[in-house]
Amino acid sequence: MNINDVLALVDKERDAVEKELLANLDSDVKMVNEVASYVFESGGKRLRPVFLILSAMMSGYKGERTATLSGVVEYIHTATLLHDDVIDGAKFRRGKESANRVFGNDIAVLCGDFLYSRAFMNLVKDGDSRIQMLLAVAARTMSEGEVFQLVKTADVKIKFEDYLKIINSKTAVLFSACCETGAILGGVSDERQAAMRDYGTKLGIAFQMADDILDYLGDPEKTGKKPGTDLNEGKITLPVLKLLEASTEAEQKRIREIIVDEKATDENLEYILGLMKKYDVKKRSEAVVDEYISAAKANLKLFPESPYRDALDFLADYMVAREK
Amino acid sequence: MNINDVLALVDKERDAVEKELLANLDSDVKMVNEVASYVFESGGKRLRPVFLILSAMMSGYKGERTATLSGVVEYIHTATLLHDDVIDGAKFRRGKESANRVFGNDIAVLCGDFLYSRAFMNLVKDGDSRIQMLLAVAARTMSEGEVFQLVKTADVKIKFEDYLKIINSKTAVLFSACCETGAILGGVSDERQAAMRDYGTKLGIAFQMADDILDYLGDPEKTGKKPGTDLNEGKITLPVLKLLEASTEAEQKRIREIIVDEKATDENLEYILGLMKKYDVKKRSEAVVDEYISAAKANLKLFPESPYRDALDFLADYMVAREK
Repeated sequence: MNINDVLALVDKERDAVEKELLANLDSDVKMVNEVASYVFESGGKRLRPVFLILSAMMSGYKGERTATLSGVVEYIHTATLLHDDVIDGAKFRRGKESANRVFGNDIAVLCGDFLYSRAFMNLVKDGDSRIQMLLAVAARTMSEGEVFQLVKTADVKIKFEDYLKIINSKTAVLFSACCETGAILGGVSDERQAAMRDYGTKLGIAFQMADDILDYLGDPEKTGKKPGTDLNEGKITLPVLKLLEASTEAEQKRIREIIVDEKATDENLEYILGLMKKYDVKKRSEAVVDEYISAAKANLKLFPESPYRDALDFLADYMVAREK
Repeated sequence: MNINDVLALVDKERDAVEKELLANLDSDVKMVNEVASYVFESGGKRLRPVFLILSAMMSGYKGERTATLSGVVEYIHTATLLHDDVIDGAKFRRGKESANRVFGNDIAVLCGDFLYSRAFMNLVKDGDSRIQMLLAVAARTMSEGEVFQLVKTADVKIKFEDYLKIINSKTAVLFSACCETGAILGGVSDERQAAMRDYGTKLGIAFQMADDILDYLGDPEKTGKKPGTDLNEGKITLPVLKLLEASTEAEQKRIREIIVDEKATDENLEYILGLMKKYDVKKRSEAVVDEYISAAKANLKLFPESPYRDALDFLADYMVAREK
C-alpha cells in the first residue's frame, strides 16, 4: 500500500469535501468569499477529512455526512490557521503569501470568525449533538492550547507534560475529533469509539512531534525553512527537551541562557545543533514519535480487517515518515 | 416606569446571568480565565440578556434557560468586542484599559475564540436546534458585517442601504436574535416570534444610529469621547449621510475630500460640525431613529398587556434617549 492507494480509496469522498468547502462560501459580502476561496484554493492536504472519512468507512458508514462534517473540521482548522498567522505575523502559508499579508490582519481575523460560525451552522444542520459537542470542545481546547503555548513561551522549566498538553491541544485534539466523528457515524461500540479517539490523539501528538523535530533537524532544502524557527520564537519542543535531558549541567545552563535571553543567532543555533548531534537528539526524539505511532496503531486491532483499516495503519506511519 | 423598575422586574434573572458568565470560565489554562474575568468583571450593562429575559417572560417562559442562553449571547458579544478592539487597536473598553492592551493582541484574539467555542458548547448543551441556528447565523452575520464595514471604509458613495446593512450586521442581528430567542422559549405563535425578531432588529438599528449620532453631535463631557472618531476612521454613518443629503454640491465635494483624503483635523471637523449645525443634521438624524423606534414598538401590540411588555416598550425609548 502506498499513499496513492490510500487516496484512491477515498477519492469520491474527497471530491465531495472540496465541493462542500466551496459550496458554503455564500456570503453576500464578496470580500469574505474572496478570502475564503484564496485560503481553500491554495490546496492543503485535507489530512483531517481523510482521517474522518477512513474512520467512518472502517466503522461501516457510507453517506454524505462525511463531506458535511469534513467541511466543518476544515473550516475550524482554517479559522485557527488564519488567527495563528495573524498572531505569529506569518508571511507565508502553503507556499503562498498568507491571508493576513494579502488582505490585512483585520480581514484575516474576521474571516476566521466567519469560518467558525459557518462551521457551527453546518454542525447544527447535521444535527448530531454528540458530534456537535465533540467539535465545540475541540475548538475550545485549541484556543486554550494556543494561549497556554504563549504563556509557556521561553519557559525553560517547561515539563514534558506541559509540552504534551500544548501539542495535544493545538494538533491532536482535532485529529482525535475527526477519527471519533467517523466512529460515531459508523455507530460502533463505545469501546471502538474510544479506540478511534485514542488513535487520533496519539497520531496527532506524533505528527506534531515529527514536525517539531524537523524544525531543528530537518533538511532545510526539503522543509523550505531555516532550522530553529521554534528556538527563535521561544517554543520549547521535543528536541530541546530531549537535549536538556541528555546534556551536562553546564550545557543545560548555556542552552537556557540562549532560549531566555539571546535567541537564535547563527552562532547560538550552531551550538545547539552541535549539541543535538553530539547526543543524537534526532534518534532520541524519533524514538518517542515511534512509541506514539505504535500505540496509535494498536487501537486499529479492535476493528475487523478492511482496506480502510489498512489505510489508517499505513497513514499513521506515513504522517511521520522521514528519510532514513 | 423608569429604568430601575425595569431592572427590578428581572433582578433575579440578571443575577443568574452574572453567575452563569463566570461559571463557565473553567479553563485549566489560568490565563484564559484571567482574561475572561477581566472582561466580564468590568461590568457592561448586559443589555442583550435583559432583552432576551424580558422577551421570554412576556412570551410566558420562566426557567433557567434564560441564564444559559443569555450567557451564550454575552460570550458571542464579548468575543466580537475582543476581536474588534484588536482590529481597531482600541485602548479602552468600558472605562478600563482594553484586554488587547493589557494582555496583548495574541491573547485577546485567542480568548475571543475561546468564548465563541464556549458559547457553542453551551448552545449544544441547551439542545434547541432553532436557537442554535439563530445564534450561529447571528455570529456569521456579525463577522460578515465587520468585513463589509472595512470594505466600505471611506467609500463616500456608500448608500443608505449599505449603511443599514452594516449596522444591522454589527448590532441589530444580535439584539434581534435575543428577542427571538425569548419568543422561542415562550413557545409563541410564528407571528409573534416574527414580531419579536422585528422588534429586536429595528431597536438594534435605532440603537446603533443613536450611537453614530453621538459620535458627531454628542456632548464630549457626557460621551467621554472627542467628536468625529468615526470621521477619522472613515466610517460613514447616519449624520454624514444626512449631511450629504442636505448640503449643496460644493459642500458635498468638500465633505468627500475630507473623508477620502484628509481625515479629521480640527479644522475639518469644525467645518463638518458647522455644516451639520447649519442643516440641523441632529434633528434630521433623530427623526430616522424615532421612526425605527416607533416601528419596533408597534410589534409589541401583538402581545397581551404585562409588566414585561411595558418594560420592553419603555426600553425601546430608553435605548436611544437623549437630552432634550
